Amino acid sequence: MLTSTENELASYCIQVARRARNASRVLCGLSGAIKNRWLLESAQRIEASCDQILEANKIDLQNAEGFGLTAAEVDRLRLSTDRIQQIAEGLRAIASLPDPVGELIEGSTRPNGLQITKVRVPLGVLFFIYESRPNVSADAAAIAVKSGNAIILRGGKEAMQSSRAIVEIMQLACVDFGVPIDAVQLVNTIDREAVGHFLKLDQWIDLVIPRGGESLIRRVVAEATMPVLKHYDGNCHIYVDEHADLAMSVRVVENAKCQRMGVCNALESLLVHRGVAREFLPMLAMQLTPNKIELRGDEETLTHLPSAVAATEQDWSQEYLGPVLSIRVVGSIDEAIEHINRYGSHHTDAIMTADLSAARRFVTLIDSAAVIVNASTRFNDGGQLGLGAEIGISTDKFHARGPCGLRELTTYKYVVYGDGHVRT
Amino acid sequence: MLTSTENELASYCIQVARRARNASRVLCGLSGAIKNRWLLESAQRIEASCDQILEANKIDLQNAEGFGLTAAEVDRLRLSTDRIQQIAEGLRAIASLPDPVGELIEGSTRPNGLQITKVRVPLGVLFFIYESRPNVSADAAAIAVKSGNAIILRGGKEAMQSSRAIVEIMQLACVDFGVPIDAVQLVNTIDREAVGHFLKLDQWIDLVIPRGGESLIRRVVAEATMPVLKHYDGNCHIYVDEHADLAMSVRVVENAKCQRMGVCNALESLLVHRGVAREFLPMLAMQLTPNKIELRGDEETLTHLPSAVAATEQDWSQEYLGPVLSIRVVGSIDEAIEHINRYGSHHTDAIMTADLSAARRFVTLIDSAAVIVNASTRFNDGGQLGLGAEIGISTDKFHARGPCGLRELTTYKYVVYGDGHVRT
Repeated sequence: MLTSTENELASYCIQVARRARNASRVLCGLSGAIKNRWLLESAQRIEASCDQILEANKIDLQNAEGFGLTAAEVDRLRLSTDRIQQIAEGLRAIASLPDPVGELIEGSTRPNGLQITKVRVPLGVLFFIYESRPNVSADAAAIAVKSGNAIILRGGKEAMQSSRAIVEIMQLACVDFGVPIDAVQLVNTIDREAVGHFLKLDQWIDLVIPRGGESLIRRVVAEATMPVLKHYDGNCHIYVDEHADLAMSVRVVENAKCQRMGVCNALESLLVHRGVAREFLPMLAMQLTPNKIELRGDEETLTHLPSAVAATEQDWSQEYLGPVLSIRVVGSIDEAIEHINRYGSHHTDAIMTADLSAARRFVTLIDSAAVIVNASTRFNDGGQLGLGAEIGISTDKFHARGPCGLRELTTYKYVVYGDGHVRT
Repeated sequence: MLTSTENELASYCIQVARRARNASRVLCGLSGAIKNRWLLESAQRIEASCDQILEANKIDLQNAEGFGLTAAEVDRLRLSTDRIQQIAEGLRAIASLPDPVGELIEGSTRPNGLQITKVRVPLGVLFFIYESRPNVSADAAAIAVKSGNAIILRGGKEAMQSSRAIVEIMQLACVDFGVPIDAVQLVNTIDREAVGHFLKLDQWIDLVIPRGGESLIRRVVAEATMPVLKHYDGNCHIYVDEHADLAMSVRVVENAKCQRMGVCNALESLLVHRGVAREFLPMLAMQLTPNKIELRGDEETLTHLPSAVAATEQDWSQEYLGPVLSIRVVGSIDEAIEHINRYGSHHTDAIMTADLSAARRFVTLIDSAAVIVNASTRFNDGGQLGLGAEIGISTDKFHARGPCGLRELTTYKYVVYGDGHVRT
């Protein structure tokens, strides 16, 4: 645990980044079989070391009060035999996914006989900053190495002992199975300054992935010299079209808002076409009653729902992550599209409609990572979309958009074969 | 032409960026037929307006001396009937390329019946900073709009009149063919501060593409709040392996070094395996004699080429863009790989070998945008690789790598269809 001078900290961070880069030079050429054997062996050793991991977790739990964790946070930090089993199963699931490295993305033979191929290769070195759940350490390490990348893990201080126990097991397995030991490194200091040092090291780190609150992510974006894979927030919309099945719409809106409120793909704002507002809004309000959702509506919404609260301009941009829903009545699909593109987070937005041309217009013009027709916004998730594993969600357009799994942690290179070809 | 207060300039830049964003909201839904008709009509009108463009070009040429342009630069600036014809042909070639927008990249139906598609969509708004050749204005506008993006063109002041004449023709064609007029905008001021203002506007601009000298590109990277598509330099290598065909290697090295010296994919540094250095280096030196290439070698190279100059550490990192070649003798392919990954620009690197396992090792472990076997580095180019059109070359790994054509100016979104699906 380093806490001494700034200099020592800076040189520690450089060492970690350099070791990661060296490991990545080996990882990019490692066979899928070796990576999978390491994953399966790590899973087995994590199960076999259950008691030892629980001991480490006990220390984290003892420290939790000192860190001022809420009951929900303590619960997410707490491991059990079952949860450790789930971590191991997670590694096995990642082992079973197709290896993205070496995929031939496309290829052609040019008229001069030159053979052009575009081949998927790892990004190199990832720097991952994340919250307190210890299972995320194992997951992220597995996703990184499976996609051929070295990873530097900067976990929350709250889970330091548990993460260290898990990562050490995976590192020992590295040594035994031909994976470079520095493929997975856990930052060995809780000094907040360490993050700033790593964010300067773009000659060794190819990508930073921050997961956590918006202020952390904004800090990382401001300081990072390398690309950042991230989303700030998820102000997700459902637009109930003039031609929507209203009973279906009530079920989908309820699910999107209530099934899990604190997540980024939960519904925050509802737009309803004027032609169905009078019928739909009271149906919805009745359905939402048991869930105690506060409804904040524009003027026209209030005429249909007198018990709703008046929404302010600020409501249209807000991600509540809780039991509040903003509602606006619109006169056309284009008004809905304009509202969403203006106030939304470009994360997940849905339309409820039976009209094909409305659906086509909506999916073409909405500028979001996922655009959904007649289904809950909650489906924008790596598992639900079939990616198998996910390290984060991107609302940026550059590189990867939406849930990011193994393939999103790769790039490509052109590999060209000739027989002494020269340019004329 | 704005030259007054900073405030006026800032608000001008914001207006331009906003108009581009609004245009992009329409462009993303425009059919390929409309975009192609606009390209073909622009080509015809450019040919028909030849005299008017030549008049504008004459003013630029008259101003050229005042800007201190070299003879080569004046030549690149000069238009002729032939060159204007070529600009029009370039637009027709881009019209004939497949439309990347709307491509269904992949899709699946999940076990619950939810239909998942990943659809290619435009990035949005591009800000393109480039040197003085007026043909680049037409090319960039065509590539941007064909890929569904709005573009803000910031050309060199040297070509301002010529670029304006060409862009105005394309804008008038926009109006007549249903393309938003702000799809293509030329920055209407030569104030250098304008670039700084645009680089702050990440809420409206999705990507900046700077083309020019390394200092311009470094400035853009330092100031940009949005992603940058770029390469700094091209320190390209050829490694002549122990098992290379030496006569073929001489031809390829000569081509890579001499066919065109001032370009980013020209050869700058040669690595030769110890086992063939004694035979190969004198053969090469003799072949290069007529080209008057200065050879700068390490100690071992000098024993085979007594007339070469001693290379310094700095030579290994340098992009000469002229008649100089650095040469190093290495003891193994791994030594060559390490040298290239350490000193290279991750741009274009080649191996000459008849040995399959050496070729496979080289292409796996070299961390560059293009890795070439038995052919000249000069082939790393959008046209040569079959992309059809190119707006720049990227040596970054995030998003696009190597030559960037239409597809590299797009992103994707998930489009999901359900029948009232909710998450349980």
